[in-house]
Amino acid sequence: MKIAQDVLSLRSSRRCQMIDITRQVSELVTQSGIQNGCATVYCPHTTAAVTINENADPDVPHDILLTLEKLIPQNLPGYQHNEGNSDAHVKSSLIGCSRQIFIHNGSFVLGPWQGIFFCEFDGPRSRTLHVQISGE
Amino acid sequence: MKIAQDVLSLRSSRRCQMIDITRQVSELVTQSGIQNGCATVYCPHTTAAVTINENADPDVPHDILLTLEKLIPQNLPGYQHNEGNSDAHVKSSLIGCSRQIFIHNGSFVLGPWQGIFFCEFDGPRSRTLHVQISGE
Amino acid sequence: MKIAQDVLSLRSSRRCQMIDITRQVSELVTQSGIQNGCATVYCPHTTAAVTINENADPDVPHDILLTLEKLIPQNLPGYQHNEGNSDAHVKSSLIGCSRQIFIHNGSFVLGPWQGIFFCEFDGPRSRTLHVQISGE
Repeated sequence: MKIAQDVLSLRSSRRCQMIDITRQVSELVTQSGIQNGCATVYCPHTTAAVTINENADPDVPHDILLTLEKLIPQNLPGYQHNEGNSDAHVKSSLIGCSRQIFIHNGSFVLGPWQGIFFCEFDGPRSRTLHVQISGE
Repeated sequence: MKIAQDVLSLRSSRRCQMIDITRQVSELVTQSGIQNGCATVYCPHTTAAVTINENADPDVPHDILLTLEKLIPQNLPGYQHNEGNSDAHVKSSLIGCSRQIFIHNGSFVLGPWQGIFFCEFDGPRSRTLHVQISGE
Repeated sequence: MKIAQDVLSLRSSRRCQMIDITRQVSELVTQSGIQNGCATVYCPHTTAAVTINENADPDVPHDILLTLEKLIPQNLPGYQHNEGNSDAHVKSSLIGCSRQIFIHNGSFVLGPWQGIFFCEFDGPRSRTLHVQISGE
């Protein structure tokens, strides 16, 4: 059993944005040499998240972000946090700060339409992600 | 440390549906022979998800699906994805595509009311789930 | 590879509440002696959840709970579950019943603002959490 720990750096360019990081995470798996196991992508930021969804049609990320903005407006009466980004904290907890992807024979077990996305909810900013790969 | 990788097949019968898969996943754990560790259920589809919630009263899954439909209607002004299932993609990312269940002495560490559910948001369809069991 | 399994007990004092459990989980990691790997916090209750978000400003948990209450009112027309807590079941599945935190050189890989929270949605109650720590 081997455990590899890595960091990915990226930069968002809008307040809300989904950035496909499938290729970068996949490269870390190849570098780790782990053939069977699991990769976990972890976001250490409280106004961002990680999700897995369709990366074939860019309209899918667009519609996900649109729905989140309609559900959770930036200013809700009663917000007490005074940085103007309470909505981003809520979205972070709803989408979640990490996701796991299985590794089988050196490749990701992703569905044919699935990609891994970093979700920015309070950009633009420079961000980092932690990736842990464990297996054999 | 042992890693077992399996696939479950199932078929949904409605557009939105929660299907209890606790028994099927539990059988894979028994077959793996792993006594202590973790089972992860992963959904490779972008319009479906996996959750853990009450499987004693079928009204609970009903009410969860009802709330999701009220929050995220099938047609929201501004949707660009032209397959009419943007709501299903959003629900997939909100509920999440995988869940972990601990294994202790060969049995699941589930709460007394908890069951594992496949969540269909764009059925009816044939679906598969990946299950990875790791431990000793 | 070592696997440690522990239980945390806590008591909520309000119907909806986020309780910072970072220190308690961190102590279990220290006790396990595991230097590199992962801790998973699992909630066996179907009307509660686990999340990671900002624990510096208490207004952030306040605003998260406020948003969830506005999105998912306690009584929605059409609810069939007759315990009056369908909203809590929905929140549990939206936030999710478990979270993972990496361990590197004996310490958590948490962002500078991140803490681990137990989320109570149907308190006040006595609750337990399961913690599994795996690694070397």
